[in-house]
Amino acid sequence: MVHGITIDGCNPSNWGSPGVYTSLARGNVTAVNATIAIWEGFEATVDATAAWHRRFREEADALLPVRTTRDIVRAHETGRVGIVLGWQNIAPIGNDIERLEAFHVLGVRIVQLAYNVRNLVANGCYEPADEGLSMFGVKAVKKLNELGILVDLSHVGDQSSRHAIEDSDRPVAFTHANLREFCDHPRNKPAALVRALAEKGGVIGANAYPQFLPSGFDAGMAEYLDGLERLLDVAGIDHVGIATDQCEGHDRDFFEYLARLHGTTPHFDVRIPGPNPAIKGLETNAEIPNIAAGLRGRGYGTEEVDKIMGGNWMRLYRDVWGA
Amino acid sequence: MVHGITIDGCNPSNWGSPGVYTSLARGNVTAVNATIAIWEGFEATVDATAAWHRRFREEADALLPVRTTRDIVRAHETGRVGIVLGWQNIAPIGNDIERLEAFHVLGVRIVQLAYNVRNLVANGCYEPADEGLSMFGVKAVKKLNELGILVDLSHVGDQSSRHAIEDSDRPVAFTHANLREFCDHPRNKPAALVRALAEKGGVIGANAYPQFLPSGFDAGMAEYLDGLERLLDVAGIDHVGIATDQCEGHDRDFFEYLARLHGTTPHFDVRIPGPNPAIKGLETNAEIPNIAAGLRGRGYGTEEVDKIMGGNWMRLYRDVWGA
Repeated sequence: MVHGITIDGCNPSNWGSPGVYTSLARGNVTAVNATIAIWEGFEATVDATAAWHRRFREEADALLPVRTTRDIVRAHETGRVGIVLGWQNIAPIGNDIERLEAFHVLGVRIVQLAYNVRNLVANGCYEPADEGLSMFGVKAVKKLNELGILVDLSHVGDQSSRHAIEDSDRPVAFTHANLREFCDHPRNKPAALVRALAEKGGVIGANAYPQFLPSGFDAGMAEYLDGLERLLDVAGIDHVGIATDQCEGHDRDFFEYLARLHGTTPHFDVRIPGPNPAIKGLETNAEIPNIAAGLRGRGYGTEEVDKIMGGNWMRLYRDVWGA
Repeated sequence: MVHGITIDGCNPSNWGSPGVYTSLARGNVTAVNATIAIWEGFEATVDATAAWHRRFREEADALLPVRTTRDIVRAHETGRVGIVLGWQNIAPIGNDIERLEAFHVLGVRIVQLAYNVRNLVANGCYEPADEGLSMFGVKAVKKLNELGILVDLSHVGDQSSRHAIEDSDRPVAFTHANLREFCDHPRNKPAALVRALAEKGGVIGANAYPQFLPSGFDAGMAEYLDGLERLLDVAGIDHVGIATDQCEGHDRDFFEYLARLHGTTPHFDVRIPGPNPAIKGLETNAEIPNIAAGLRGRGYGTEEVDKIMGGNWMRLYRDVWGA
């Protein structure tokens, strides 16, 4: 394991806001699962990859596209931020699984099966009922497995998550979620599911988004670390990573957009105290080292901290991506 | 009730094949729920409506667009075929329910919530599990109610159908389906559901597609009428119509397309004996009067035959469309 690699398991910051990259560099972040699609469809998501590849060319001294874990090591060695293109919703494939062939070449390496609500593939965690993956969903997981794209289940319903964990030929992830027994919320995961995921070699990223911590928008770093330790108790030292779920650079409109069903139909209330909700001590991407400091303060040794801060994501990525 | 109106509750013939219109005219069909979308998405379906409106202009002596039941009466009086634009899948709205506002103006009057498999709104009848409508689906039904578009549940799963029957403010339809107790097939509907639909004022169209009759591709008109009578036993004389499910003018490619999940992913086997499977006695749209003749042969009187051949669809359309 390379020492000192930091990987943020999920980060939906505003990638059009230049300050975000400065923050990530100041936070010594080696690689980040950068959300490029939530409700967006096919064309918008192809466009988003185009914008990224232009950015990779223009900011080659600061950013690096990640296709394999070797690219993450390279980012670490050259002091750049590695960008893993990730989706929080499989909607960009539209009605055609084969489009994943193109998106894989475009660099997409992490795909969540559903975002909060039901789609063609799976049920989201806020649906009142969930009986698992659809027939199309079973085939989508198979294709993601074949291509070596990591399946993410953070916003997926419990039964669809279980179905995917059982069906998948490769380990899967909750890239950003906490333990439901720590904070009772549909977005957090029951211990039995976390255990099932870990037993298949998966990783769960302890989620710093305040809404999913017991004190909500009043939560601070101590509470985040409490939740992370609860995940360690359930999943073990090799199956827990970090995830800031950082929304740096976004304004309230972003949250209003997320709260609409499929980005269009008003449904959920938006209750956020400010434009970029974050726990105290992790206000921007630059504060990510506070997590490692907190872990060391609680007595974790170098190897343990390395695993939690990035080593476990590295192993999972390698297992799934193939290199 | 106007005497002699014939309405085909669902007809997915190949509308690009000119012989189809000749057949409908020869069959004295007053109006037909013409399927214009099955797996097609937003752009393809807008294009399909454009093609229809061009056709309405160019063939105004033979065809008539139907927006209200008055248009059907006009078709009857002027000896033309009235075309109701219908979808067998709500997929054309993509991720945005508000698009129904535009499609309503474009003439769409019947929308099925799902075709065979799960979509954003409902589960299809072939899914191994059905947890009812999604949150988005509940809102879609509300919008269809507001606009006065008929909700069709023929290819929808049992639990999603029940959910829609209960949720809908207006009567709904199984535009083309038979009784499951008559022919045990997931595409046919259990008596309890048919009863629930009828109690809300809905109509079920006895389906002439041979696969959903007990003798399959060997079935003839007598068996079709047996199935129709079983529906009459369950739903009553005011709640049963006809539906040819006629695929005139299509070749095997059409059935291969239908058999793919969302039109893309191979899944179901296609087992059809010829290019256009139909029961004996209803080989094309021109033979539709054979149904009325068969009913008369079984002793049904003029008023009863008028209700079954078109009057019940007229009443339902008026109830839902508002005119």
